[in-house]
Amino acid sequence: MQLTRAADYAVRVMIHLASQPEGAVVSKTLLAKAAEAPESFLSKILQSLARAGLIQVRRGVVGGFSLLPRGKRASMLDVVETMDGPFALNICVTPGTSCHRHVECAAHRVWLRAQSAMLEVLRDAKIAEMIPAQESRRALLSTAQVAVSDDPENENKI
Amino acid sequence: MQLTRAADYAVRVMIHLASQPEGAVVSKTLLAKAAEAPESFLSKILQSLARAGLIQVRRGVVGGFSLLPRGKRASMLDVVETMDGPFALNICVTPGTSCHRHVECAAHRVWLRAQSAMLEVLRDAKIAEMIPAQESRRALLSTAQVAVSDDPENENKI
Repeated sequence: MQLTRAADYAVRVMIHLASQPEGAVVSKTLLAKAAEAPESFLSKILQSLARAGLIQVRRGVVGGFSLLPRGKRASMLDVVETMDGPFALNICVTPGTSCHRHVECAAHRVWLRAQSAMLEVLRDAKIAEMIPAQESRRALLSTAQVAVSDDPENENKI
Repeated sequence: MQLTRAADYAVRVMIHLASQPEGAVVSKTLLAKAAEAPESFLSKILQSLARAGLIQVRRGVVGGFSLLPRGKRASMLDVVETMDGPFALNICVTPGTSCHRHVECAAHRVWLRAQSAMLEVLRDAKIAEMIPAQESRRALLSTAQVAVSDDPENENKI
């Protein structure tokens, strides 16, 4: 029981796009490198993300992909479900289905609770807030450098 | 991404065995009926549960299966992992493996948190405490009847 590779790569791609400057367009080759995904496999994933309105395809010589507002607001769960469909820990808790045992079945309630606990974490994780640790450090460093250079007392300290 | 049918049926079997009186031996046919599982498929599942020391096989004319102490203490997670192996939401959080991206990867931490949240619920759900709702109602009813008949003030009220 595991997420598909497509869902995993899709999340990597979305996080990479979210870490780019506003309006940046990233080529498929660079996205494949960032996500460490085979470029041919990524084509299908990017199509699905575009169809779901999470990313935009820019055609042309300097074409590529950029995040759409809906993609910025997306959660990890949104991205996973775009690729793998609605999550269901067990067949009896598949959305839109009903198990005739569920009234008496003690396990059914546990599957539901376990599934909810996991989905809650994935739903709370917004792509736009998931800047990779490296990017965070760069941003912090650049803020610190700006703060230091803005402070006249520090003028001769660097 | 879903549990296997084997894991689902194994949990049903274990809960059914746990709801039986101490030392009861249940035939494969009755277990298959209780779990609503194909009898032929159940053979393999019962073998795995026995190999894991969760249930005991009683041979002979009145043979069948009963819960072992380890089975009584087992959690839903123990049963699921007996059938499906260690749970891993994503390839990067598979026990015993290491993803070289995990230091920088913002998603890695979320996969781990989501997985932990789900496993915690399954780990807390002990098979021995998972009496089906029907059995619970019967037990409650029987306790209520005993309480009423034990109370001398209620002697003429029934």
